[in-house]
Amino acid sequence: MKNHKLKTLSGLPDTPYFAVIFTSQRTDEDKSYAETADNMLELAVQQAGYLGVDSVRQKKTGITVSYWKDENSIQQWKQQMDHLQAQVGGRTCWYEEYTVRIAKVERNYSFVKGE
Amino acid sequence: MKNHKLKTLSGLPDTPYFAVIFTSQRTDEDKSYAETADNMLELAVQQAGYLGVDSVRQKKTGITVSYWKDENSIQQWKQQMDHLQAQVGGRTCWYEEYTVRIAKVERNYSFVKGE
Repeated sequence: MKNHKLKTLSGLPDTPYFAVIFTSQRTDEDKSYAETADNMLELAVQQAGYLGVDSVRQKKTGITVSYWKDENSIQQWKQQMDHLQAQVGGRTCWYEEYTVRIAKVERNYSFVKGE
Repeated sequence: MKNHKLKTLSGLPDTPYFAVIFTSQRTDEDKSYAETADNMLELAVQQAGYLGVDSVRQKKTGITVSYWKDENSIQQWKQQMDHLQAQVGGRTCWYEEYTVRIAKVERNYSFVKGE
């Protein structure tokens, strides 16, 4: 399949690879949130096996999907995240609820207008 | 693992199941979009094997993740979607770009505040 040049979305690595699907409902508590979110993204980008991230928030509801080469990369990133969040007192004050799904991407394709 | 009662996000089915991760960048073209999007969601909910959906849009960027029992359910839903979109002239006018990833969810967990 032709590999389209995506402009704003994460690209498509060779399959198989892994996706961490994080859905969340925020609280009104913003203490340390923005700074920690920036730090988490920075940690992800530096992490071996990181392939990309797409993240969208609409009012209190958010979906962040990060893409990873293998499960070991996810595990190492999770350890760093836990450490970072522990430093600011845990993430539980920021969220009414959240879910995490670890999934193996088996197929993917893209469309880019005008190509 | 304890099965938390999520309030606003899709629940967690027994693994393994499948996720279709759809990321998109919209155009300004709204012709038939809202109506067709509603019809697509209605079709999904009625489809055998449908388990849930989470969808968020922030300005032009959107992430929709739908959850399915097996790949056959996804295939049947895709055929219905193609048919529906063909009736309104195809989806390509609505999107600058989009990606579709079909992934097998192997693990998942949730957090609900106060439980």
